[in-house]
Amino acid sequence: MHRSPIKFCKDCGAAVVYRLPDDGDTKLRAVCPACHAVHYENPINVVGTVPHWGDKVLLCKRNIEPRFGKWTLPAGFMELGESTAEGAARETVEEAGAQFEMQELFSVMSVIHVGQVHLYYRAELLSDVFDPGFETIEARLFTEAEIPWDEIAFRTVSQTLKHYFADRKTGQFGLHHESLV
Amino acid sequence: MHRSPIKFCKDCGAAVVYRLPDDGDTKLRAVCPACHAVHYENPINVVGTVPHWGDKVLLCKRNIEPRFGKWTLPAGFMELGESTAEGAARETVEEAGAQFEMQELFSVMSVIHVGQVHLYYRAELLSDVFDPGFETIEARLFTEAEIPWDEIAFRTVSQTLKHYFADRKTGQFGLHHESLV
Repeated sequence: MHRSPIKFCKDCGAAVVYRLPDDGDTKLRAVCPACHAVHYENPINVVGTVPHWGDKVLLCKRNIEPRFGKWTLPAGFMELGESTAEGAARETVEEAGAQFEMQELFSVMSVIHVGQVHLYYRAELLSDVFDPGFETIEARLFTEAEIPWDEIAFRTVSQTLKHYFADRKTGQFGLHHESLV
Repeated sequence: MHRSPIKFCKDCGAAVVYRLPDDGDTKLRAVCPACHAVHYENPINVVGTVPHWGDKVLLCKRNIEPRFGKWTLPAGFMELGESTAEGAARETVEEAGAQFEMQELFSVMSVIHVGQVHLYYRAELLSDVFDPGFETIEARLFTEAEIPWDEIAFRTVSQTLKHYFADRKTGQFGLHHESLV
């Protein structure tokens, strides 16, 4: 999902112009000269889990772009009609076919250059048998020593994994809050 | 910011149709029959603060719709190019003209029926003098007993305030994670 500029009004189909709206807003927005609609563009959320089984964590090898063939935690775009936790659980089912119990919110990471916020929950696996969907080539458990750090798809995944294994050593899981530029 | 259905393609201006895309997606999306663009609709984030001064909290009386004249914590839509914390700080400057230091993430609340996620940070006020912007009629400090509970603009604000005052009594501030349907 890339962010190309808005060219046409989604309400009436007229060509929009980027300008300051008339309501005191200080940011350039796509404004429709025909129907006067103002179209806002905002960051979107990616929601996922850190599914764990003993000293191992579940990663999925991506069968889709971007980062085809790289390893990720199960995660995807939050949808309308669901909470952040429901979206994280849905993605874990869709991408890994895992059985699990949702736990606490574990990381909240703003990824500024792509206009995203990534939220990961810990999830306790109830089985080590997986049934990945079409987005996943392979779903596999990794110990910390086995994590393919150079083959991780996204920075928020490697950051979240590092925090997970560090917290696991202390037995205290915190909330990890960061920004990536 | 309401969610009307997408009628026209923002890339080429053609009328869209809602259908299943061809990539295995299981949700109806606005698909452009002319240029084949798929337009996703996702929840957006509202970011704000709980600005506190001794045993008081700062609320802003809204000078804009929705909920004109009701009281709110300073908060607004997260923008592209900023982190959740930066957006929360920006809104606190814009709506209250407050001087403060940002603290920890305090509440994360999915508001499912409007497709929003609200994130509030605690913020320590450095002054009890405010300079509210045009969106705010009045910025004022309230003790717990003074909070106008029946005049609070949004449910996530009253929930966050309740958690704040409860945690303040224990001296331990947690992360409060909820869904509102």
